[in-house]
Amino acid sequence: MNLYQSKTGKETVIALDAMGGDFAPDEIVLGAASVASSSLKVLLAGRPDEIERCLAAADPASRRYLEIVEASEVIGFDEDPVKAVRAKTESSMVIACREVAEGRADGVVSAGNTGAMLAAAMFNLKRIKGLKRPGLCAVLPTPGKPTLFIDVGANSEVRPVHLLEFANMASIFAQDVLEVTNPSVGLVSIGEESIKGNDLVLETHSLMAESPELNFYGNVEGRDILRNVVDVVVTDGFTGNVCLKLMESTSALIVEEVKKAANRSLIAKIGGLLLKKELRKFKKSIDTEEYGGAYLLGVRGLAVVCHGNSSRKAIASALEYAARASEQRLISKLEQRIATLRETAAT
Amino acid sequence: MNLYQSKTGKETVIALDAMGGDFAPDEIVLGAASVASSSLKVLLAGRPDEIERCLAAADPASRRYLEIVEASEVIGFDEDPVKAVRAKTESSMVIACREVAEGRADGVVSAGNTGAMLAAAMFNLKRIKGLKRPGLCAVLPTPGKPTLFIDVGANSEVRPVHLLEFANMASIFAQDVLEVTNPSVGLVSIGEESIKGNDLVLETHSLMAESPELNFYGNVEGRDILRNVVDVVVTDGFTGNVCLKLMESTSALIVEEVKKAANRSLIAKIGGLLLKKELRKFKKSIDTEEYGGAYLLGVRGLAVVCHGNSSRKAIASALEYAARASEQRLISKLEQRIATLRETAAT
Repeated sequence: MNLYQSKTGKETVIALDAMGGDFAPDEIVLGAASVASSSLKVLLAGRPDEIERCLAAADPASRRYLEIVEASEVIGFDEDPVKAVRAKTESSMVIACREVAEGRADGVVSAGNTGAMLAAAMFNLKRIKGLKRPGLCAVLPTPGKPTLFIDVGANSEVRPVHLLEFANMASIFAQDVLEVTNPSVGLVSIGEESIKGNDLVLETHSLMAESPELNFYGNVEGRDILRNVVDVVVTDGFTGNVCLKLMESTSALIVEEVKKAANRSLIAKIGGLLLKKELRKFKKSIDTEEYGGAYLLGVRGLAVVCHGNSSRKAIASALEYAARASEQRLISKLEQRIATLRETAAT
Repeated sequence: MNLYQSKTGKETVIALDAMGGDFAPDEIVLGAASVASSSLKVLLAGRPDEIERCLAAADPASRRYLEIVEASEVIGFDEDPVKAVRAKTESSMVIACREVAEGRADGVVSAGNTGAMLAAAMFNLKRIKGLKRPGLCAVLPTPGKPTLFIDVGANSEVRPVHLLEFANMASIFAQDVLEVTNPSVGLVSIGEESIKGNDLVLETHSLMAESPELNFYGNVEGRDILRNVVDVVVTDGFTGNVCLKLMESTSALIVEEVKKAANRSLIAKIGGLLLKKELRKFKKSIDTEEYGGAYLLGVRGLAVVCHGNSSRKAIASALEYAARASEQRLISKLEQRIATLRETAAT
């Protein structure tokens, strides 16, 4: 148990889609039960009888920090995101978002259908005033310290001003929620020089270089993303989504192949056993569950989109970061920054 | 020594930039010496005295299949590609390309400055008749069989018809040079469904689906690139370049971290030693040197762009694939396919 502890004494309420995820509702509910505390109340949206069954396996002391919000429907992984969100207004995912929209929760977490969760958050949560586009920000578990990667799929077609907004929002998230001092920002391109890239990148580069609010490093290449060259890596949602899925599959593939290699002979098998402890530490260091999921920045109330295969640990992390964001008044800080950007652009 | 053996009895001549690469001229020259044969003659462009010095360490029997072409200048890795190619007309890279342009060689290989080699090939070699854009095609050493990935950086801004050309050219390369039967083609997007992606992908998807020449699979996602889902993966040169560099750095990072893990305790160290043999086999299976480099498809005469850190083995592979391509009359097959595409588009 790692009960959530507030640093400011503020009580935070986070809505959780209890029915979304490969291991829902059990792992989702148990994740909530493991972190809920007097400073973090979790609203569990879903079928009450199923949630109650899961809660029977949890520490009874957590029960008072958990509240069930009835939701009769569930959105499946195979459903068309937009259609499902429109049709299933009584689904656990939509109801969880509505808890935020109607002011009963400060943030929302779901490990359900990613596209549907993005659509549900976009439709139900209002956009921050003056913002053009929300962006989906992944937290990459790079060695040493995390790297923020935005946008990983909310916008497949963008303009330079959208990338500037993403850079600013992710910088504030890095600083206030992940406690990175003066986060540096890199723009994904195909060469380090400012003249390298496609038209979108060339224009965005000048815009970012002139932005006094940003600690702009310049262009970064594909090879720099995981190398802690910068704290915040900015790209369009098409490139970001392709890269995120590529990284995940590359690591998974290599880990599979190393395992296979360790099973190919008796000697290799013994070698693998002796290495196991250290390899496990390494695996933990690149564990994507550490940071819970991807954060939709730019809507009024933080929305966390978790991996479908999230365990209770991932859900607990997501709830914790969502609470941390609310405690740090992330949304109002994002609003201030966006207002500043608009003023700068107008002058 | 793995002397090149022709399957058709044809004698092929390939020009090699002997001075380009981190380990030039030694590894470059020795790579050529290891593969040159009665069916593969290699023209070594560079400084004669340095090349002769390197040849002293090679099998003297190879000497008769190697010819030195004097080049007094060298383009460095830090030079601006376009400027360097324009200014240094007597560089080993430009001279090697000129050997192809003037009909004395069938293909050209360089491990020098990548951008410069792209520029040198684009400026000096004529484009295939009717083709709009050449594309740079990497051969990814995926488990089981290779995957072609085009474009990895020749075009940062493209239109759907360019992607269609890339798909067709890489299919022919896969079939005739890598001996893949009826190669399947996937288009990189952010979802499998045909309605997923940015405007470029949506338009390209319809174009490819309607192309009778292609074995079109449909969209593939970032996670599918290394999973042998298709034989040819097509994307724009911006996304392709970022992905290629990301893949390379992800694998390198994980291998580094596994090594570090194996050095952290005595037990882990013993484990690492016992696993070494199998891990080495695995490393060999994902070795990018296997296929020599990336292939610029669409110019008259195949141009192979090798990694800066190419060893003699990588250079030998590149020379071998370049010779194989020439033996298979790759360029004339590409010309036929491009002509067919133009006819189809006109009707």
